[in-house]
Amino acid sequence: MFNPAELIKKKRNGGALSREELTALIGGYVRGEVPEYQMAAFLMATYFRGMTPEEAGSFTELMLRSGEIIDLSTVPGRKVDKHSTGGVGDKVSLILAPVVAACGVRVPMISGRGLGHTGGTLDKLEAIPGFQTRLDSATFRSVLSDVGAVLGGQTETIAPADRKMYALRDVTATVECIPLIGASIMSKKLAEGIDALVLDVKTGDGAFMETEERALALARTLVDLGTQYGKKTLAFITAMDQPLGYAVGNWLEVRESIECLRGKSVRDLMEVTLVLAGAMVWLGEKASSIEEGMKLCQSAIWSGAAYEKFLAMAKRQGGDTHVLHDPAEYPPSAVQVDVPSRGGGFVSGISARTIGMLAIELGAGRKRIDDVVDPKAGMLLRKKLGDRVETGEPLLRIFTDDRGAAERVRREIESCFQLSPSPPALTPRVSLMVDDAGVRPWVMPAFL
Amino acid sequence: MFNPAELIKKKRNGGALSREELTALIGGYVRGEVPEYQMAAFLMATYFRGMTPEEAGSFTELMLRSGEIIDLSTVPGRKVDKHSTGGVGDKVSLILAPVVAACGVRVPMISGRGLGHTGGTLDKLEAIPGFQTRLDSATFRSVLSDVGAVLGGQTETIAPADRKMYALRDVTATVECIPLIGASIMSKKLAEGIDALVLDVKTGDGAFMETEERALALARTLVDLGTQYGKKTLAFITAMDQPLGYAVGNWLEVRESIECLRGKSVRDLMEVTLVLAGAMVWLGEKASSIEEGMKLCQSAIWSGAAYEKFLAMAKRQGGDTHVLHDPAEYPPSAVQVDVPSRGGGFVSGISARTIGMLAIELGAGRKRIDDVVDPKAGMLLRKKLGDRVETGEPLLRIFTDDRGAAERVRREIESCFQLSPSPPALTPRVSLMVDDAGVRPWVMPAFL
Repeated sequence: MFNPAELIKKKRNGGALSREELTALIGGYVRGEVPEYQMAAFLMATYFRGMTPEEAGSFTELMLRSGEIIDLSTVPGRKVDKHSTGGVGDKVSLILAPVVAACGVRVPMISGRGLGHTGGTLDKLEAIPGFQTRLDSATFRSVLSDVGAVLGGQTETIAPADRKMYALRDVTATVECIPLIGASIMSKKLAEGIDALVLDVKTGDGAFMETEERALALARTLVDLGTQYGKKTLAFITAMDQPLGYAVGNWLEVRESIECLRGKSVRDLMEVTLVLAGAMVWLGEKASSIEEGMKLCQSAIWSGAAYEKFLAMAKRQGGDTHVLHDPAEYPPSAVQVDVPSRGGGFVSGISARTIGMLAIELGAGRKRIDDVVDPKAGMLLRKKLGDRVETGEPLLRIFTDDRGAAERVRREIESCFQLSPSPPALTPRVSLMVDDAGVRPWVMPAFL
Repeated sequence: MFNPAELIKKKRNGGALSREELTALIGGYVRGEVPEYQMAAFLMATYFRGMTPEEAGSFTELMLRSGEIIDLSTVPGRKVDKHSTGGVGDKVSLILAPVVAACGVRVPMISGRGLGHTGGTLDKLEAIPGFQTRLDSATFRSVLSDVGAVLGGQTETIAPADRKMYALRDVTATVECIPLIGASIMSKKLAEGIDALVLDVKTGDGAFMETEERALALARTLVDLGTQYGKKTLAFITAMDQPLGYAVGNWLEVRESIECLRGKSVRDLMEVTLVLAGAMVWLGEKASSIEEGMKLCQSAIWSGAAYEKFLAMAKRQGGDTHVLHDPAEYPPSAVQVDVPSRGGGFVSGISARTIGMLAIELGAGRKRIDDVVDPKAGMLLRKKLGDRVETGEPLLRIFTDDRGAAERVRREIESCFQLSPSPPALTPRVSLMVDDAGVRPWVMPAFL
């Protein structure tokens, strides 16, 4: 006899639910037999009591099995994906997917939209005129097969239970719970039919996990869930204490990605991208170490092969490659203004979170779910952490069609930048690596 | 702008909600604007984070003001009630109400039914043929006015928000939360239009608050809530480590109550009853101390005045006073069997909780909400804590019409009794008193 209240009580009292109990509770919820209010109480009890690795594993599998698992068995070669917990200026996926594909590892990537102050890969891709992210399974498979990389959006058939659960968590203040976050991420990623997964767990002011401690806890949970499911899973803790690269905003980020794919070195962005991409190439069995994978990725950029992959993928997904070749053809924002610094010194802090919120104010993201995004809107940073600034020098440039928003944002920008009289100590962009053996400091190879 | 999820988050993070915030949240819930799932998450967060005294006060008042507050201003004299947190064999209300009324203090008592393993005053009263507990306000007032005591059931007009909230707590494992328990109790008691209140907070195996620590926390909360509302409120911590008195079961308890009202001394039962009753007489300004109140109560029993009050009240509420005068006229149970002890020694433990559950098995209470209670069913203990038992002597007698249940219960009884070779140390029946000045040990007066 199955009594949901007894299972809620067990969790509330700090107990662990068996696989059978979770199956009854979550299965009942997905079928509509366990009401929302009981699931809400269970989620809040879980917020306070957490889950054992076994519970999180069962929970993830129940989400996963509520929907379709994409069958990529007909696509030859190893398939490896990357997931990021979300940041500001995080255009890594746009660069990494073609780079890794150019190294011979297939990248079947399902991405999301902007959430809170962070941007989303789908919104960035859709800044490319014509680019389609709603792909049916057959198209998804054939682009992956022919090009080696495909970037799509989540369909309704992937983990519908997670969607139902997330909607409830969103209105019951139970989003910020590491096992639930982990289960939500992994149930969607494991549905991709991948062989291995690399995770970019961001920490700092612009990340959802603001402290390294929480980022590490999430990384461990994600690696554990992937490992339980038999997938080789690696996670890196990376810095989100300033926007990644210089561009924040959908088209601006596409443009910066193209520049990087053509060989421009944007140091922090390319450090993070190459570590994640190198790990994917290693997991895809095209290199004997992450470092060797990183070298192969560099070569794929320098040879032009990665950029060719990007163009091929964009073309197959309906994108207008004309503006990719010649970004100056893209329609300009009506307002483009530099914001000068009122003081001088060294940049010792940039609030990535506030920058992300202000970019949304300019039109680069949504305040409400049905807001229309302006793909041109955003900011180009001129100064990053450690840079020297003279009084009157621009800190960044604003791009928007909304004059009112430009004025509001201009007034707020200075509060995002901290200046100090001497150069600040800079923390590494990639600090830790987590795999099923544990946590190690990440040492950036000297060649980079 | 009022966002329930933000208020849930505030509580989840350990914050205190303002009166305005609680009004929006609880008021919205009562009006059906805040959905059950958000209230469920809020209740679970409250389970973990608790409430400040101010929050509990606002919460209580919102429950209280959701319904009718009985207007007793036309009834002359001080009105004082007693509430017990529930126990096994707890027939205190039946004795106390007429005793206190006989001392000139009015007792407008609204009682409940059995809950879990505990009995309920309404079920006991309804064991008296014809006794009506569903009284309209006018009848309630007139019985109180004419007799001095009235025992009714909760009507739909009293604290409807509490009923809605309790139903949700029951299915979301959020019942066992002291501020919520306190608010639920006090919102109903404060609706009675009383001047003062005495609380019997039970502790031990047969109580909902099993530890003295939790009982004391609840007592403090209840006293604080009453005091916030301007009502003089006193609480006593009393023992529920064995059934109170000898009778467990509705008619058996009425019969034991009548015997006590006629002067029989059932020591533990009368100790608890007289302390609570004495405190009510003191709060009702008919005595200058609790001890003097207790002496007045004893006199009211010895003079026969208390028993007369009981008969008058029963008669006004439709009860058949014939069986009260001559309990032997009551229909007997088909099965009446003694359960002998298989060992000898001193009774050092009696599981009140198990006794309560077994009484329900015999028909004295409900396993499901629509079960019909057998008023005759129950048990009469022959031995209580500290008593000497010889092998083969009866521990108690079972009363039921259900032969199967009698057999099942008979096999379980011995596990309820612990025997020891020497007399056990006995704890006081009333251990602590709590008022708005704090907690004091209760010292039983020597005359008792």
